Amino acid sequence: MEPLLISSKQNPRIKALLALQQKSSERRRSGLFVVEGQRELGHCIAAGYEVVEWYVCSSLLGAAGERLLSEAKAATAYELSPTLYEHIAYRGSTEGVVAVVKERPLDLNDLQMREAPLIVVLESVEKPGNLGAILRSADAAGADAVVVCDPLTDLYNPNLIRSSIGARFTVPTVACTSEECIAFLQERGIQILTAQLQDSHPYYDVDMRVGTAIVMGTESTGLTEQWRRAATAHIRIPMLGRLDSLNVSVSSAILVYEAVRQRRGIEN
Amino acid sequence: MEPLLISSKQNPRIKALLALQQKSSERRRSGLFVVEGQRELGHCIAAGYEVVEWYVCSSLLGAAGERLLSEAKAATAYELSPTLYEHIAYRGSTEGVVAVVKERPLDLNDLQMREAPLIVVLESVEKPGNLGAILRSADAAGADAVVVCDPLTDLYNPNLIRSSIGARFTVPTVACTSEECIAFLQERGIQILTAQLQDSHPYYDVDMRVGTAIVMGTESTGLTEQWRRAATAHIRIPMLGRLDSLNVSVSSAILVYEAVRQRRGIEN
Repeated sequence: MEPLLISSKQNPRIKALLALQQKSSERRRSGLFVVEGQRELGHCIAAGYEVVEWYVCSSLLGAAGERLLSEAKAATAYELSPTLYEHIAYRGSTEGVVAVVKERPLDLNDLQMREAPLIVVLESVEKPGNLGAILRSADAAGADAVVVCDPLTDLYNPNLIRSSIGARFTVPTVACTSEECIAFLQERGIQILTAQLQDSHPYYDVDMRVGTAIVMGTESTGLTEQWRRAATAHIRIPMLGRLDSLNVSVSSAILVYEAVRQRRGIEN
Repeated sequence: MEPLLISSKQNPRIKALLALQQKSSERRRSGLFVVEGQRELGHCIAAGYEVVEWYVCSSLLGAAGERLLSEAKAATAYELSPTLYEHIAYRGSTEGVVAVVKERPLDLNDLQMREAPLIVVLESVEKPGNLGAILRSADAAGADAVVVCDPLTDLYNPNLIRSSIGARFTVPTVACTSEECIAFLQERGIQILTAQLQDSHPYYDVDMRVGTAIVMGTESTGLTEQWRRAATAHIRIPMLGRLDSLNVSVSSAILVYEAVRQRRGIEN
């Protein structure tokens, strides 16, 4: 099918696309979200998401981009001029493809896990960019899932997807309440390791070879009381310098990789 | 001394300040740089840097800011209106103080190190924000120094200082050529662990309790041949997911914290 040409910023489809990128309310209303970039879309399609519309700038696309489009033929394709493409794309002229994709929310009960799962739990993380970076590390560490409790951002935020460089689609990611997550972990006998200073052990003194959830709070206020109470153990990253905190995405990477070290996971 | 009032964006001091923030050539020419924020300036002054000028918005300053200023009385202070302060400050109205500080470049021979030092070496890291994040982790891990070889950014870049949240001043940081750094490490018998895939060991299989330099290249092209040849061992972070790379600041945090784990460093 020949792509339909769009040449104006005033085109209603362009306006709808920008609204989906910018407004979580619009994503919630429509059940759709936006993915930009060939690598990200490759992971998205491989994970079984349904592409509804393509917005393409053919002159930027290249062979890899052409292959990508051929994998989701049912979607309507729109051709944009380079100028109009730059108007809608965060990364400007580098990739040539933006897609509208159907949301597919996961539930805790949808998670398929190993016998001794490794789960990253984040309570009320504020910045989509941090959450994306954590997903990237969770992918690398082979985590079974990332659970975002009482989220302050929706899981289809474009900045989240972008900073995850596609890990949003490779790691099962669930949003739920803290109560639901605690019940889920306790029912399955998964130990709850909360990152907090009080009464804590250095993280490397805790056995992570059993089913483990690593739970992190916000950088500003830490974890809420319900997580502290639910904890099997409290863990801390020893701070040997002058500053008093690490970025939450750096902390989570250090902690999940300690589980990788202890488990000596099989590399791909 | 009463601060001198500046009320116009056209004031030559304001223009000079912005030039120092924006242009590495201007920093190089003058031997001066800019630090914003009370926490960053606190670390800067504690490390013995000399403040030359203060740019202050008194109504934003607070008690902690007043104390800060009293620690470097010799510097000339300029008072800015809130609007003008927002014009020069990256973080707008949050801190109320920006300072011009004298550069104080460190040499490899200036480094004072423990008997079994831990050094982070970065070859040609491109993004100041990444370098700042690495400094933050290096501080937390109690690293003896960060050495930036053949740098593509100057070490007084405001974005670097900002993303380090002051670790630029708490961790001795040296810029030099790769040749100089390799000679320095080899003369002192410090093992060189290069982060690269080829012929590599998982990072946790290498003994880091001896004097250790962890060497990382750019995310795009990795390390140059001279570092590969100089390596005592090549180390890799096992990748257990679908993506093929970690952010360089995340990787360096995982690697330096493995040294912390093996050494069981004393916490502050």
